[in-house]
Parts: sequence; structure tokens; C-alpha cells
Amino acid sequence: MLKPKYIRESEVIMTEMVLPNDTNTLNNLMGGRLLHWMDICAAISAQRHSGHIVVTASVDNVSFSQPINLGSIVTMKACVTRAFNTSMEVFIEVTAEDIPKGKKIETNRAFYTFVAMDNEGKPVRIPEIVAETTTEKELYQSALRRRQLRLVLANRMDPQEASELKSLFSV
Amino acid sequence: MLKPKYIRESEVIMTEMVLPNDTNTLNNLMGGRLLHWMDICAAISAQRHSGHIVVTASVDNVSFSQPINLGSIVTMKACVTRAFNTSMEVFIEVTAEDIPKGKKIETNRAFYTFVAMDNEGKPVRIPEIVAETTTEKELYQSALRRRQLRLVLANRMDPQEASELKSLFSV
Amino acid sequence: MLKPKYIRESEVIMTEMVLPNDTNTLNNLMGGRLLHWMDICAAISAQRHSGHIVVTASVDNVSFSQPINLGSIVTMKACVTRAFNTSMEVFIEVTAEDIPKGKKIETNRAFYTFVAMDNEGKPVRIPEIVAETTTEKELYQSALRRRQLRLVLANRMDPQEASELKSLFSV
Amino acid sequence: MLKPKYIRESEVIMTEMVLPNDTNTLNNLMGGRLLHWMDICAAISAQRHSGHIVVTASVDNVSFSQPINLGSIVTMKACVTRAFNTSMEVFIEVTAEDIPKGKKIETNRAFYTFVAMDNEGKPVRIPEIVAETTTEKELYQSALRRRQLRLVLANRMDPQEASELKSLFSV
Amino acid sequence: MLKPKYIRESEVIMTEMVLPNDTNTLNNLMGGRLLHWMDICAAISAQRHSGHIVVTASVDNVSFSQPINLGSIVTMKACVTRAFNTSMEVFIEVTAEDIPKGKKIETNRAFYTFVAMDNEGKPVRIPEIVAETTTEKELYQSALRRRQLRLVLANRMDPQEASELKSLFSV
Amino acid sequence: MLKPKYIRESEVIMTEMVLPNDTNTLNNLMGGRLLHWMDICAAISAQRHSGHIVVTASVDNVSFSQPINLGSIVTMKACVTRAFNTSMEVFIEVTAEDIPKGKKIETNRAFYTFVAMDNEGKPVRIPEIVAETTTEKELYQSALRRRQLRLVLANRMDPQEASELKSLFSV
Repeated sequence: MLKPKYIRESEVIMTEMVLPNDTNTLNNLMGGRLLHWMDICAAISAQRHSGHIVVTASVDNVSFSQPINLGSIVTMKACVTRAFNTSMEVFIEVTAEDIPKGKKIETNRAFYTFVAMDNEGKPVRIPEIVAETTTEKELYQSALRRRQLRLVLANRMDPQEASELKSLFSV
Repeated sequence: MLKPKYIRESEVIMTEMVLPNDTNTLNNLMGGRLLHWMDICAAISAQRHSGHIVVTASVDNVSFSQPINLGSIVTMKACVTRAFNTSMEVFIEVTAEDIPKGKKIETNRAFYTFVAMDNEGKPVRIPEIVAETTTEKELYQSALRRRQLRLVLANRMDPQEASELKSLFSV
Repeated sequence: MLKPKYIRESEVIMTEMVLPNDTNTLNNLMGGRLLHWMDICAAISAQRHSGHIVVTASVDNVSFSQPINLGSIVTMKACVTRAFNTSMEVFIEVTAEDIPKGKKIETNRAFYTFVAMDNEGKPVRIPEIVAETTTEKELYQSALRRRQLRLVLANRMDPQEASELKSLFSV
Repeated sequence: MLKPKYIRESEVIMTEMVLPNDTNTLNNLMGGRLLHWMDICAAISAQRHSGHIVVTASVDNVSFSQPINLGSIVTMKACVTRAFNTSMEVFIEVTAEDIPKGKKIETNRAFYTFVAMDNEGKPVRIPEIVAETTTEKELYQSALRRRQLRLVLANRMDPQEASELKSLFSV
Repeated sequence: MLKPKYIRESEVIMTEMVLPNDTNTLNNLMGGRLLHWMDICAAISAQRHSGHIVVTASVDNVSFSQPINLGSIVTMKACVTRAFNTSMEVFIEVTAEDIPKGKKIETNRAFYTFVAMDNEGKPVRIPEIVAETTTEKELYQSALRRRQLRLVLANRMDPQEASELKSLFSV
Repeated sequence: MLKPKYIRESEVIMTEMVLPNDTNTLNNLMGGRLLHWMDICAAISAQRHSGHIVVTASVDNVSFSQPINLGSIVTMKACVTRAFNTSMEVFIEVTAEDIPKGKKIETNRAFYTFVAMDNEGKPVRIPEIVAETTTEKELYQSALRRRQLRLVLANRMDPQEASELKSLFSV
């Protein structure tokens, strides 16, 4: 029986500077590059919780609302929100600052899921996670609904059985 | 009034070889790297349809089911499935081959959306798209449901008003 | 005895977007970068035909006639044109599009040769190839002349014995 | 007159995963790669304090005591320790974790200095900095001695005039 | 009238270490990567002679005879061999050393041609070049024959008019 | 007993072109990138002297006096200045040229130290080095003083015992 861990123990902060090769011809950060950074940041958080190598199982819907300029500083904060048997969900928040212009924006939020692996690439059991703050508890609770949505979207669950989701759409 | 274009005119095939820096310590392609490639491939397809620079607006839920080995050949096929005023949805399918091992797998499917931009970074109107084959028509039809899901997940639509989605979850 | 394969079975399409680090100070794609992409694209085609890891044996003369702008889409199409014992010739055609400017150019054609290798790095026998279309047959026929030129240029054949080449230069 | 800022306002945390291309043939992180990451992390801290683009003026002696394995997580923490007219000193601490092996080491400490620049590349005046904790105050005090050492090593100060340094070496 | 320059004034030495991302799955340097490095090295030599930005006009046939291991040191030496109106030919020799194994091999020789450009991307006149040593004189003389071969291969010269080449193949 | 080697046998010249991703938003080479290149160049020199894989042990204080523009050619020259039991000091000089602008500057000088390693990562004994020219002899002599400074700065030597350093600061 693995000893449970706190959400805060999995917290990771990653900072990147937007360099020319990360940008499109409008000089803004390309969405795919940001998804790549977010995946690495979230994977480190999942490693922290599980103590194992992890592989990406899925990324939920991500929206890109505002452009991020060349030279901006991108800060990502990630933490595990819920652990299942061998997989876990990671929440990640992204902010971008153009310091010389004094502009700071919240750009993205996303949920990635990872599976913990042993050295032969077999899934391994991971510790449970303990939510402490109000925000952490909300993320922990809503993780089940997001999980059902992932299963429905991957055709691995019948929408009619997704009880958490159904309540959203019906009277 | 812009002349409509066919879905097949936006088709793009992109091939990449998995190199060491694309892999994790299990020697498998990292999920974030694949998301990055898919974004570039889908963006080129959106450029083909719109004739403009495009920026990523969102990526839908993506699942990663099977590991892709170092040295594998990753092939991505993208096409625009539906055009809205200034934005469009792109469907992308990924296969991976480890040729010396004679192993070929279908690894991912995803939907990205892009907004077309002029040179000053303002959204511009794009042509409508015409679906011809049965598969194209299905993708074209279901694009509305996926769009509602994106809006609901981005908190820009009340789930109760997402008529296309509601029908999935209610009796 | 290996079963022969068709030229079309080795076809590969690779698409790249020209990013800042691929360009010189005139903002045009550097020749060496394009040679690198062409090598990867051609190598994948040679892998497809042979079913093995391949290593580059040579690249024929390549000319660069027109500049390719930052942000352009480079499309490469490769196929094997002729198989010898353990080596094969790959033909590759490159086009570049600056989509927002509506400009599309044929930029390059080249021939690369590859040797198929087993896992210990020893050359292995590969299948013969079958040309079907007129273009394929012409490429297949002229492959012998290009091979003689390579051998002469590598000082591995006396120019006087290069019968295919001699006919070009004498009355 | 610019309003002074606190040291803690300039704090930056940057996290990187050691990928294959960052390593030597012993599979350990190359020193130069770490110096490059530290420079970016420290530069962001200097941007935070000054509100300007910054350029590296110098890096003090850095020692590399223990190897950092492929796949390790490198965490860098930087903060400005003292501001001069247009330049500032940044302190940076590096730790490395090999999470699956449960190994965490303190690897490096270093001091970088940066000059703040306007958009034309001219040095600009920056705010003073306020040390609050005991550690911050010690770093603030000892900054003068490190500055003298830099000036002596760059042949811009006579060792005999380096009063802070002399006291170290004489009876 | 531009003052002629010596061949030795254009000499460039470039050294690279073969890192994981430069190699194929046999852990050997990929041919395309080497072509890319050679292009940069040769371009610097052409810049030295012309004093201008240069763009690659062509690369002659290049053969790859021996594998170059991961961790090897690749040394390239380039010099301009002959200047025409606005273009010049550059000769480049490559050696590779695996120092811990005490293995040093001559791997490649190649000829690249470049055109000198002004800041608007128009070809500009360049100085003549003066060969001093016996080797330099031989390279200078044979440059005409290589030039004819390039023109014939690019379909810009009739083989029957390639007087330097014809003499090679006829009695 | 290993046969001593000459300083000139360890000489390495490395040339790099400053590409977009190497620069900050002022279009100048970032300090950390240069430190990375210098580390690779110096490591190759240390490999040449020792005949072994080497790992960076330290870099001495480095100052960056003048900006290096995008497109510049950076030339680094390195040689081993003194060998100890298993470690050696490498001196490296950097110049930068903006050829189209006809501008050439001496930008940096630095000392790196490396430890020679066998294939298991254990330090190995290396040959002594022989200084021939006046400059080489000065570098060889002053290496002891720099070594003491490194030990003092790493808290591995009491400043009072650093006899070579003390003489600099006392009457």
C-alpha cells in the first residue's frame, strides 16, 4: 500500500523565453510549441507524484485566446489533481509576460493525463493524492467528470453511462 | 464573395522521422512533440484552404494509445473539414511505422481549429468548403457538435443551449 | 529470392514549414538545410522499398535556382527509381509555396543513393523494383548513366569505360 | 527617481528535462548546456527587476561537481542580489533530480551580471533593490567583493585597490 | 576594379561534435546533417572571399564512404578555388575523429558554389582569386571542367559544347 | 608513464554562424549560447590532449564586452595550457566578424577545466603538457594562480594558503 501524497508536493514551475524558432510569421508563439512545453511541464509534475517515468495518455481540449509575442516569458504551473490506479490527471496554467512592454496575460489552462511506467514500459501503481485547499478540492472533484468526457470522446464509454456528464446537459 | 473550395484541395501529408531528441527515457516519442508536429501539419492545411497566415485557436481532446519507437516514421494527413467566418476546423490522422520491424499502427486522430489572419494580425474572411465523399460529409456534419463542445469547455456557451451535444446525453 | 516491388510503393511526401532558424540573413532558406530535409525524405523512401535501415551513399549534383522565403511551405516527393544489389537510387522533387503571396515554385530535383543495412550495419540484399509509368521507366533507364557518372566522379571508374556517358559527349 | 524593488520580486524558477541532445557520450548533461540554461533563467530574473531587455555582462567562476543523468529534472532558482546604475548581479542555484532513482543533488551556484538596455541597445538606469531576509542581506553585502573580483579579473581594477578582496588574503 | 585576393585568405576551419540528434538508429552521423554543416562552412569561406552575404547555387556530387560515430569530432576545411563574375566555387574537405578510439578518417570532399548578394538580394561582382601553391593551382584549373559539368547537369549547356568534359571521354 | 604532448597538438578551431535562435530581441548573440559553444570547443581540445572523453569541471569568470550581431561569424581557438593528474586547463579566445559590414572584434577569453574519464566515468591519468612559445609558457605558469583562485572560490582552499594569489594583493 503506497503512502498518499499531497497535491502541493507535485507542483512544478517552468519558465521559457519565446525565441525566434518558436514563432510564426506574425512573430507570435506557435500553438504547437506551447503544447509541447506544457506536456514537458505536466510530465515532470506527474513524475514528482508517481516517482516513475510517465507517458502522456491524453490532453484535453486547449484554447488559445491571445497571441504571445517573441521575447515573452512564458510561465507554466502544474500539479497533479487526481490519481487513479496507474494514471493521473495534471492541471496546468500558463501566463505570458512581455516585460519591457509591461504586459502580462493569462493565456491557457489545460489538463493532461499520464500513465506511470516501470523501466520495461509496464504501467505501475501510483500513490493516491490528497487535496487540501478549496481550489485543490474542486479540481479533485471535477476530475471524474473530465475523465468521463475523455472516455466518451475516445469511444471507450457510452455517453448514456457518463453520469457526471449527463447531469450537465439535462434538466 | 469568396469562391468555395473543395476539402481535397486542403489536403496535406507530412512525414517525420523520430529522432533521439523527440523521445523520452523509454525511447518513445513524447506526446508533446507529436502535438507540435500535428499543429504544424494542420496549420499548413488551414493555410491551403484560406490562403492566409493562420493561428491556432484550439486543439480538441487527443489520446495517445500506443508508444511510437525511436526511428519510426510518423505520417500525418490533414484536411479542413468545415469553414466558419474566419475560422476553420482541421482533421488530422497520424500513423507510425517502424519499417525494419514491419510494424505499422494508427496512433492518433485530432481536430485543431485555426483563425485566418491578414498581415496585421486581424482575422479575415475565408471561403466556404465543399464536402464531396461520404467521409467528408460526415466530418462536415459532426463539426457543429465538436464546435459546441469547444464553446462549452471554454465557458463560452451554456451546456443547456448546446443542442447538438444535449441529444447525445439525454434519452 | 526477394519479391520485386513497385516504384509507387516507395513514394513519400514530406512537408516542412521554413522557420527562422532555417534561413540566412536575407530571410531565405539555406541550401544546406534543404539538403538535410531532402536526405531524410529520400531515406524514408529507401526504407520503404528495402524494409531496412539505410545510410546515405551519395547525393548527385543539386542546383538551387530560386530563393525560398521564410514561412514558405516546402513539399518533397521521393521515390526509389532503381535498385541494385544492396543500394538504390532515390529521385526527389521539391516545390515551395508562399501561400499568403500565392507563389508556388519548383525549386529542386535531386538523386540520392542509399545502402540498406542490417542491425549490425552490414549491407543487405534488397528487392528489385518495377517501373510502371512512362516517367518511371525513363528514370529507371537513365539510372545507369547517373550511376556511371557517380563512379567516375568518385574515381572508381575510368571515364573511358563509362559507355553510357561516352555516348553523350562523342559524335 | 525609480522606486526600489524587493529581491523576492525578481525570483524566477525554471525547470528543464535533460534530453539526449543535451548530453555527452557518458549520457550526462554537458556543462555548456547548463551554462546556457542558467543564462536564460538569470536573464529573466534581471528582466523582472529592471523591466527592460538585458544583456549578459559576465558570469563568475562556475564549478561542476557531480554528473547529471539523461532524463533528470534540472531546477534553477534565480534572483537579483544587488543593483548598480545600469547593471545588476543575479544569483542562481541549480538542483538536479533523477526522480525514478530517487536521487536529488545540489549541483551548482553561480553569479551572472546583466546590463539593462532600451530598445536601441543603450544602457538604462534601473531601480535599487531591497534585501529583506538574512540570506538576502548577506548576498547583497558580498556583492561588492564579487564585483571587485570581476573588475580585477577583467583588468579594469588594480588588485592593490580592491579593498574588499585584499582583506581576504592579508593578515 | 576589385583587388584580387589569395585563396588562403578565404580558408575556414569548422569543428563539430556529433550529438545524438545528428545520428540515425545505427548511431552514425546522417548524411544530410553533414551536407548541412558543409554548406555553412563553405558559405563562410565564400563570405570571406567576397565580403558579402552569399547564397548556395549548387553542390556537386558528394559520396559518403565510411560511417562517422556518435561523439566523433568532424573537422571541415574550406577555401574558395575560383571566382567567376558574381559566383565562386568552394572546395571542402572533411575528416572525422573518434578520439577515445584513436580512429581518424578522411570522409568527404566536395565542391559547393555560391553567389554573392547585396542587401537587396541582387548578385554583386566579386574579386578575382589568386592561386599560389601547386594544389591551389590544380584546383583553380580544374574548376572550369567542374563548371561545365554543373551546366550540363542543369541542362544549361549542350554536352557537345562542353569542351573540357569531352576530352575526358573521347580518344 | 604517459609520453608528454605539446600544447600545439591540442589546438582546435571552431567556427559558428549566429542564427536567429541564438539571439535575443536586440538581435545579438545571447551570452549563454556563446558559453555553450565555448564549452564544446574547449572540450574537443581537452579530448585531443588526453585522448579520452572529458567532462567540464569549471569555467572561470567570463566577461562579455561587445554585442555580436545576427549573421556574424564566431571563431573560437582553444588549446590546453596545463595538465594536472586527471584534469587540464583549456584557454579559449573568441573573435566575431560581421563580414558584410567589415567589422571584426575580439570578444572573449576564457579558461575552462576538464577531467578526463574512462568509459565507466572514472577519472584517468593524462599526459603532461609541454609549453614551447613565450605565450604558451606564460599561460602555463599562470595556470597555478588561476587554479588557486578556483579552489578558493569553490571553498576548497583557505585564502590564506593561496600563496600565488596572496602575492597579488599584498605589499
